[in-house]
Amino acid sequence: MGGGLGSALIRLGGLSSDSDQVSVDSITLLVALLCACIVLGHLLEENRWINESVTALFIGLGTGTIILLATKGRSSRILEFDEELFFIYLLPPIIFNAGFQVKKKQFFRNFMNITMFGAAGTLISFCVISFGAKRLFETLDIGYLELRDYLAIGAIFSATDSVCTLQVLNQDETPLLYSLVFGEGVVNDATSVVLFNAIQKFDLTQINSRTGLKFIGNFFSLLITSTLLGVLIGLLCAYITKKLYFGRHSTDREIAIMILMAYLSYIMAELFDLSGILTVFFCGIVMSHYTWHNVTESSRVTTKHAFATMSFIAETFIFLYVGMDALDIEKWKFVSRSPGKSIGASALLLALVLIGRASFVFPLSFLSNFAKKSKSDKLSLKQQVTIWWAGLMRGAVSMALAYNQFAKSGHTQQPGNAIMITCTITVVLFSTVVFGLLTKPLVRLLLPPSDHPNIMNSVDPSSPKSLALPLLGNGLESGGGGEDSTPSFRTLLSTPTHTVHHYWRKFDDACMRPVFGGRFSA
Amino acid sequence: MGGGLGSALIRLGGLSSDSDQVSVDSITLLVALLCACIVLGHLLEENRWINESVTALFIGLGTGTIILLATKGRSSRILEFDEELFFIYLLPPIIFNAGFQVKKKQFFRNFMNITMFGAAGTLISFCVISFGAKRLFETLDIGYLELRDYLAIGAIFSATDSVCTLQVLNQDETPLLYSLVFGEGVVNDATSVVLFNAIQKFDLTQINSRTGLKFIGNFFSLLITSTLLGVLIGLLCAYITKKLYFGRHSTDREIAIMILMAYLSYIMAELFDLSGILTVFFCGIVMSHYTWHNVTESSRVTTKHAFATMSFIAETFIFLYVGMDALDIEKWKFVSRSPGKSIGASALLLALVLIGRASFVFPLSFLSNFAKKSKSDKLSLKQQVTIWWAGLMRGAVSMALAYNQFAKSGHTQQPGNAIMITCTITVVLFSTVVFGLLTKPLVRLLLPPSDHPNIMNSVDPSSPKSLALPLLGNGLESGGGGEDSTPSFRTLLSTPTHTVHHYWRKFDDACMRPVFGGRFSA
Repeated sequence: MGGGLGSALIRLGGLSSDSDQVSVDSITLLVALLCACIVLGHLLEENRWINESVTALFIGLGTGTIILLATKGRSSRILEFDEELFFIYLLPPIIFNAGFQVKKKQFFRNFMNITMFGAAGTLISFCVISFGAKRLFETLDIGYLELRDYLAIGAIFSATDSVCTLQVLNQDETPLLYSLVFGEGVVNDATSVVLFNAIQKFDLTQINSRTGLKFIGNFFSLLITSTLLGVLIGLLCAYITKKLYFGRHSTDREIAIMILMAYLSYIMAELFDLSGILTVFFCGIVMSHYTWHNVTESSRVTTKHAFATMSFIAETFIFLYVGMDALDIEKWKFVSRSPGKSIGASALLLALVLIGRASFVFPLSFLSNFAKKSKSDKLSLKQQVTIWWAGLMRGAVSMALAYNQFAKSGHTQQPGNAIMITCTITVVLFSTVVFGLLTKPLVRLLLPPSDHPNIMNSVDPSSPKSLALPLLGNGLESGGGGEDSTPSFRTLLSTPTHTVHHYWRKFDDACMRPVFGGRFSA
Repeated sequence: MGGGLGSALIRLGGLSSDSDQVSVDSITLLVALLCACIVLGHLLEENRWINESVTALFIGLGTGTIILLATKGRSSRILEFDEELFFIYLLPPIIFNAGFQVKKKQFFRNFMNITMFGAAGTLISFCVISFGAKRLFETLDIGYLELRDYLAIGAIFSATDSVCTLQVLNQDETPLLYSLVFGEGVVNDATSVVLFNAIQKFDLTQINSRTGLKFIGNFFSLLITSTLLGVLIGLLCAYITKKLYFGRHSTDREIAIMILMAYLSYIMAELFDLSGILTVFFCGIVMSHYTWHNVTESSRVTTKHAFATMSFIAETFIFLYVGMDALDIEKWKFVSRSPGKSIGASALLLALVLIGRASFVFPLSFLSNFAKKSKSDKLSLKQQVTIWWAGLMRGAVSMALAYNQFAKSGHTQQPGNAIMITCTITVVLFSTVVFGLLTKPLVRLLLPPSDHPNIMNSVDPSSPKSLALPLLGNGLESGGGGEDSTPSFRTLLSTPTHTVHHYWRKFDDACMRPVFGGRFSA
């Protein structure tokens, strides 16, 4: 068996280069590595510096090195970084689970801020990075890049890594920041992808005010239709589960239909060229608000944990993958001829990322504070710094977009393109490892947990997260008066600015819940 | 949107022919069809004739027809029937779940019968079908087939469809038959695949007693190593979950490691050219016996339902797929020139399947009854007929093997090969629909539920299936004395023939459970 494993390792190098087919060898190795990541991640749990993504990244890098040595420098990859795999299979469960588990109250309370940071902020960051790259890259002389390429660089490096953010911030410890940074991350991912697609499609040779307006119109109609599609499919699923009540015959059907319809929302959005990320996120929110309350108790436990597990596996897989892919020899060949240029370009991009994010977080926070009346709602400078810092990581979305733009069919033809790919890898690795490692300590330094003792312990009863409690108790539906029993939190919420939420609750109870189910109608 | 869907449907035909890449269009359609299958399956639940597989098969056929009409006869397929997809992604969850949910006591009680039916029975059926086909096909003149092809036909049509059997027999109503037929099905699938691979590898030009012995030796060493690998990985997983107790930090890790290690067992077996089906089946049994008791309550609920759901989706997908693939134009072109031959060959194969199964079920049942002393353990003629009938369905394993043998790269070159593919489709469709539809009524006719009122209501407490009850009750671990509280069932079990089981229990309690966890050590 030892010999078998050895020869399998040798084979890996050969197979990955001549065949696109996913081979049994590479699946075995990947699954084994995923298991190793989980065990190591658990053992390092107590460590305050390391998080799961960094562990996976290092395991990926380590495996890459071993394969590189075993194949005598021929190859380090088991699978080519495949956008399709990433966008069609790995991203949807992560974003859906985020929508499903997000604290809806916190999210909608900060809805204006989130969309502002996510949409307007990303546009600002995009402009800063594109403009900065165009100006500064010319002095570096790194090979020919078109205007389209510079705009693409702006979109690529504006995509925050929401996956990594999830692991660094804690929903229970810092709920406000979590919902802000994470919500922004989802909108930001969607914005970057939409921007990127728009850049690839638009005719950039003749930019005038008309095409500019058309571009902006397109952009907002995309955001709105994507959201609506997600809400619609979520409601359809709620209606089906309520009307048919599958649980009568089989819990498996309930779970299967929830998983399939969630995925359907994403893939339908992709089919109609909408933003699947936004669609599946809102589908997740609607499903946790309505559908989740229509199914049997065991389906609730199962969906809550199964979605979280799928998301967890997909996240770990992505970081493992990025780590393993980073060592690919072919990409570094061009760089070895001019290492200075590559390091310069990477440092420049990192600086631009830092500046680009700063140039929207602080001004927009100022604007947001200006509009708020109560002092508790305003964002302090410490919180602003945390928001700025927590969104600096760049991850798999950036990688996927960079591959799409600069490495058609996975191979880098031009020197300029090759350098852009290696720069992206450098920025992703550096920001994930260095920024990621520093975020946990930074958050503790800036916002020690004792600052917000009340909010931290309150459990939002309308979210699946709260299920742990009733399960340990009597195992029956907690439902009912869960919310009214925390009047202090309630009064905190019902400040004048939240009248929209009040009307929504009225509408929800009167019209939506009788049709689609939910906590009170059951 | 309607227009978009229409054009997507038109595109499907074009895409499937010129690109192997799984497209967004086809995924959308497949996911939507899976949802439709679930809803329809639920609505038809009360119907005593239709089962879920037949529903999925008809929906697949219907969709195939629509695409055929929409593309004006050019194509009916969305995806080519892909062995890799089937063997690497769809089969493992089904077989693992079967092992995970099987009633272990019933299974091991009938272990001898199961291996006898599964291994020796399949060999007999293989010989009958191969020999019969070789003799009778020559009179039909359906194009040139080698000796290897005839042997492959024997292996292909000896593979019972365990997936379909699961849906037709009920574990609670007829536990003995269920465990016999289903257990046999798993061993049988494994046997057919092993036989098939052996035929493809062996040099058939010089058969003598030495190669024959080598063949048999290979065969049994494969069965044993596959089983051992599954048990080993299952125990490793149990050890990890017991030692590290992930639940302390996160339930997601527990669930993830169970899923990943289950899959690892399958894919490792495939990597070492063992039988993944057997490996993953025994891994499932070990996991439900040890690992499942080491994890938190919510992980137990989740894994039980999540595995069942994955298996359910995979099953539905397979039948949908087979239904959709059956209408492919290209394959029927050859047949249309000589429809008589194809019908004749299909009818012949169906007859051989009937005879092949009869020629081992009745003799082996006689042998088994001969060895048993107590009358209640003997198989009555009615039960024998049910065993014979329930194993007549041929399904996706046969399809996958047939494609592997007769349609390299998905296209049929020779007339003989083309006819064999269409015959396989005909046999699979006919046996699934006609035999499948008749099985439920037949089982009710031969073995009315009132025949075994006691066994039918007893719940095996060591199997995940029983979880529904404690969950509805106090939500705490039932565990403990669940077994001793049913002494009548216990005495039924402890007949002299079950001393092996007794010693196993002693060994299990003394050596295994303290190390790997399990019901009593918790």
